[in-house]
Amino acid sequence: MTETVAIIGTGPVGSLAALGFAHKGYKVTLFDLRPDPRTTEDTKLRSINLAVSDRGISAMKYVDGKMAKRSLSEIIPMYGRMIHDLSGHQQSQKYGLHGEHINSIDRAKLNKSLVNEIELFNKNNSNEITFNFRCKFLNMHILKDEDCVQVEYLDKNSKRSYANFDFIIGADGCYSKVRSALMKYTRMDYQQVYIDMCYLELSIPAGPNSSFPLDANHLHIWPRKDFMLIALPNMGGSFTCTVFGPWKLMESLNTKEKIKSFFSTNFSDAVPLIGEDHIVETFLHNPRNALMHVTCSTYHNTDKCILIGDSAHSMVPFYGQGMNCGFEDIRVLLQMLEKNDGNRAVTFEEYSTTRHQNLVAILKLALDNFYEMSTKVQSPLFLLRKGVDNVLGRLFPSHWIPLYTMVSFRSDIPYSVCIGTENRQAKIVKYGSYSILLGITVALLKHFIQRAGK
Amino acid sequence: MTETVAIIGTGPVGSLAALGFAHKGYKVTLFDLRPDPRTTEDTKLRSINLAVSDRGISAMKYVDGKMAKRSLSEIIPMYGRMIHDLSGHQQSQKYGLHGEHINSIDRAKLNKSLVNEIELFNKNNSNEITFNFRCKFLNMHILKDEDCVQVEYLDKNSKRSYANFDFIIGADGCYSKVRSALMKYTRMDYQQVYIDMCYLELSIPAGPNSSFPLDANHLHIWPRKDFMLIALPNMGGSFTCTVFGPWKLMESLNTKEKIKSFFSTNFSDAVPLIGEDHIVETFLHNPRNALMHVTCSTYHNTDKCILIGDSAHSMVPFYGQGMNCGFEDIRVLLQMLEKNDGNRAVTFEEYSTTRHQNLVAILKLALDNFYEMSTKVQSPLFLLRKGVDNVLGRLFPSHWIPLYTMVSFRSDIPYSVCIGTENRQAKIVKYGSYSILLGITVALLKHFIQRAGK
Repeated sequence: MTETVAIIGTGPVGSLAALGFAHKGYKVTLFDLRPDPRTTEDTKLRSINLAVSDRGISAMKYVDGKMAKRSLSEIIPMYGRMIHDLSGHQQSQKYGLHGEHINSIDRAKLNKSLVNEIELFNKNNSNEITFNFRCKFLNMHILKDEDCVQVEYLDKNSKRSYANFDFIIGADGCYSKVRSALMKYTRMDYQQVYIDMCYLELSIPAGPNSSFPLDANHLHIWPRKDFMLIALPNMGGSFTCTVFGPWKLMESLNTKEKIKSFFSTNFSDAVPLIGEDHIVETFLHNPRNALMHVTCSTYHNTDKCILIGDSAHSMVPFYGQGMNCGFEDIRVLLQMLEKNDGNRAVTFEEYSTTRHQNLVAILKLALDNFYEMSTKVQSPLFLLRKGVDNVLGRLFPSHWIPLYTMVSFRSDIPYSVCIGTENRQAKIVKYGSYSILLGITVALLKHFIQRAGK
Repeated sequence: MTETVAIIGTGPVGSLAALGFAHKGYKVTLFDLRPDPRTTEDTKLRSINLAVSDRGISAMKYVDGKMAKRSLSEIIPMYGRMIHDLSGHQQSQKYGLHGEHINSIDRAKLNKSLVNEIELFNKNNSNEITFNFRCKFLNMHILKDEDCVQVEYLDKNSKRSYANFDFIIGADGCYSKVRSALMKYTRMDYQQVYIDMCYLELSIPAGPNSSFPLDANHLHIWPRKDFMLIALPNMGGSFTCTVFGPWKLMESLNTKEKIKSFFSTNFSDAVPLIGEDHIVETFLHNPRNALMHVTCSTYHNTDKCILIGDSAHSMVPFYGQGMNCGFEDIRVLLQMLEKNDGNRAVTFEEYSTTRHQNLVAILKLALDNFYEMSTKVQSPLFLLRKGVDNVLGRLFPSHWIPLYTMVSFRSDIPYSVCIGTENRQAKIVKYGSYSILLGITVALLKHFIQRAGK
């Protein structure tokens, strides 16, 4: 008998999960409190640009190669960071040793294209994926006697309704209602921490004839230690920019004069591109957005409920791994289910146990990477280390892999292994440097002793 | 104009808060999803016995001295711990140096008596406290234009209803819905951690003519390191017992034989008092209860909402301070409001800022005290330290105050100051011991040198 699953959330992670489970023969029903993303120009749809990289792409290909190709047709490769210093001078820092790249993609566009893929799936397959837009998930009830889980929701007409499924997947983001419901069934340790940092979005319009006013194939960074500006390219020549900074600083920018002076002092080369009026308008009228970090100690209850994506692990955006990690959740879960012959109880337990260390690892990497983006990218020691990685990575390509490469371009290496490997590599570099310094000292001493002896 | 407040939760903390705010002239409306505790023998009403001590009693007296006297008429003083060792031998360890005592009280009885006090208040005063039992709090909406907070709830007939208030107090326990609603308005760091420990309740029936089968004026402990049994006296001669132990151990006790053997090995003197059949029945059929630890980084939003009691700080029960701390929240809040001439915005901000360190302190003390109750009480070093405290506490009563005394009998000392003072005292004891050891060594050396010289 076909197993039925309710997926809560039709963001990128929920939509890909729907396709993934449908391809494996499950009967999928989607719920979302928002309207169909294709029928609305909802400005509240998070417009922050995403960087899709190997983990995300591999998961999409695992679900359906052709779908991946179609959905990723409008991406812009970014081969490195372009560092803008205070004087406006630009310096490119490549991400990979062999031309690897992450890819700028518009979150809303990707979301729409995944929803279109679901329609297409329905046309070509007998088992249909059902949409329930504008339906608010309220609660879930695990019914032991019926061996199923009941979804309680408000339907399109705000009428309280109920539907039964074999299991439910929570893909409803960092403020997940499924997670709250799951907590009543599972002793879940849970932590949410707001970091003292907020963000505001700006944009750089395209140049004449849809030309790019900055190099299109870089992620642009204006690193200023406590705060920074970044810009990611869009199809059509524009860039989406984000200013990140501590709340106190960002809230102090509340008059035209303060905003202008802050930008001309810190991001002088960006001001003419973004436009001073747009900057002032945005800072005066748009709310600052918080950044929250969420960790759970477990992600499931028996064979009835599991959390994926931001509902299970909301991370800060500084490693560009939020969605990639959510997509990887789906691949890992589906592969585990296959390995376990579809036994959900065993799979969910195994998933919670083995996936946890990798989620803890990427959450930590994401937190730490703000410091790398905003400060370290300009430090001589960082550049020296990058140089060492470059040399060793080319000499021993299968034995020496820089951390960024492992995280962004090697979906075969679990996040926790990335950290372990990097710790080992960092030690080697450290003791290597000591040895070189010692060698130089010995050589110099020898030289002086010989001179003195003459 | 009279200010209106909605208090969510009519447990002991919510009920006392209602009385406290009503006495100060606020118009109070109470909401609770449960029925009136006086009209029902709800077995789900948490029956765990409470130990009310100075902080709880002071807060009750601050609200209304006569009410405190009436509500605390049925308490049983406990002057110390009675330690039961494996052979059944009992040893009394006094709590205070001057006859201080904590007090055993039945949670359900205290709750009912506080609800009765509200009825009594209504009879004698013009401003009435309104009850809304069987009304489920759903959400709150802070309405900026109306400068009020809207409570969304299901009324007695499950009809969605709304009511506006000047502010709302969350006293709805460790799974607080008010806290969840508050999180949408406040960047609150939040953490919930389940400790690897669960509990089951048992009872010892009264002896002939309501006599107490164990000493009535002690909290009885059977400390067994990883697990323990405790017993608190009830009016009428019975005792309420609680077994605490790690989940794995407690779940492994799932057959008549295992349960019997576990109890006869570890609590042989308790078995005839509790009754073997009752023990077996309870372990076979009653669910084990989890122990959760909840911390928040802030407790309010502007002048519209504040959390008190378990909704703000759920602690494990090992210091007997959960309810005492919740009651103290009320006293601290009301005194702060008075000091600030009723300015809620200033008061709530001050409360969140200054109360936090004390809540963090008692949560930590409660966690640590399991180790003291289950293990340290039998250690010679612990008894030695208790002896030192005893001597110094009597010699310098205003300068040397044992930790337990500060926490349980001195509501004038904030929890965080208790920890600071104890750390200082522990250092003095440590260096004092070193000095004594050094003195003894020097004296011995002198003695031997003199003997050798003869």
